[in-house]
Amino acid sequence: MNTHVAPVELGKAYRLINHGPTVLVSASHDGVDDVMAAAWSCGLEAFPAKLTVVLDKSSKTRELLERSGRFVVQVPTVAQAKLTHAVGTRSLRDDPDKLKRCGVEVFRLAGHDTPFVQGCSAWLACRLIPEPHNQETYDLFIGEIVGAWADARVFQNGHWMFENAEPGLRSIHYIAGGHFYVIGEPLIVPTEGQV
Amino acid sequence: MNTHVAPVELGKAYRLINHGPTVLVSASHDGVDDVMAAAWSCGLEAFPAKLTVVLDKSSKTRELLERSGRFVVQVPTVAQAKLTHAVGTRSLRDDPDKLKRCGVEVFRLAGHDTPFVQGCSAWLACRLIPEPHNQETYDLFIGEIVGAWADARVFQNGHWMFENAEPGLRSIHYIAGGHFYVIGEPLIVPTEGQV
Repeated sequence: MNTHVAPVELGKAYRLINHGPTVLVSASHDGVDDVMAAAWSCGLEAFPAKLTVVLDKSSKTRELLERSGRFVVQVPTVAQAKLTHAVGTRSLRDDPDKLKRCGVEVFRLAGHDTPFVQGCSAWLACRLIPEPHNQETYDLFIGEIVGAWADARVFQNGHWMFENAEPGLRSIHYIAGGHFYVIGEPLIVPTEGQV
Repeated sequence: MNTHVAPVELGKAYRLINHGPTVLVSASHDGVDDVMAAAWSCGLEAFPAKLTVVLDKSSKTRELLERSGRFVVQVPTVAQAKLTHAVGTRSLRDDPDKLKRCGVEVFRLAGHDTPFVQGCSAWLACRLIPEPHNQETYDLFIGEIVGAWADARVFQNGHWMFENAEPGLRSIHYIAGGHFYVIGEPLIVPTEGQV
């Protein structure tokens, strides 16, 4: 397991995905693990922390998530761009060895029976808030964030530190056709009395 | 008006926000225009093109959007970081001169009675798909994208070209407390038979 994994307080968990990175979604049911890529995941509420994610009906991860009611949203890095694209284009339905073939290694955290993807920069463990109309009509899922962790080399004291970490730890932001952008440099707008 | 505004086909409109930029949301009703910032906006469907956006109950923009059923989601640039933070922290309810004070200039496009913010890099004109439960419970709004445009200096042939455009046209990605990241460099994962 990544020895840099540090807990993040739930009130600041939204910051892990606030900059709109492409994410990996993982779920498990009845001994089967799956991981997929999702470009459409987004904060929904700061506290109690919630997020949304769009999951196509064809994906096995969605089925596992619906059965278990649990999933993890995690932020892959530049070093995982090929892995991210691979799990986003292959399906466990066609290839039972998908995870191995895509180079995915998972780990477990105490109290969470869901696979966490090794090498990511942040992890958000979620409990599905069932909303059948959204799920059926829009493929839209809402999760309550029940645990959050980040790689302390790149997220510290509630803030990303991409500019001080190794470039391979930056987040990636998908456009289409294998084309991503890497997150870039910080830009600070002076604020009055804000944290 | 920005003379570089070029239409984007609706089937590729999702690409304008796929990389998770912070957006500006504008709406108008009964002669009143408002513009706010939103970190939580996300693609929902590629075609027919749809998106989601989270709008706090306190915002005047939300009220205008609910009354008119129309809104625009637009992508602000590095050059608009201060403007973006300003419209995200001031409310039209407290300051009737908000837009002027924040440096916002709007323009109209034929057939759309909604304000478009001058100087952005992309604009998505939306029709609200009423979902009262989502709106009340989660502050979550769903829009069908009925028109899309981009600044041709930075988005061409269905792809962002941040790396070839002036740096001031790059998208900005909010974290918290006036802290943004600018989108960075491209990263291409070779694909087989994909566009």
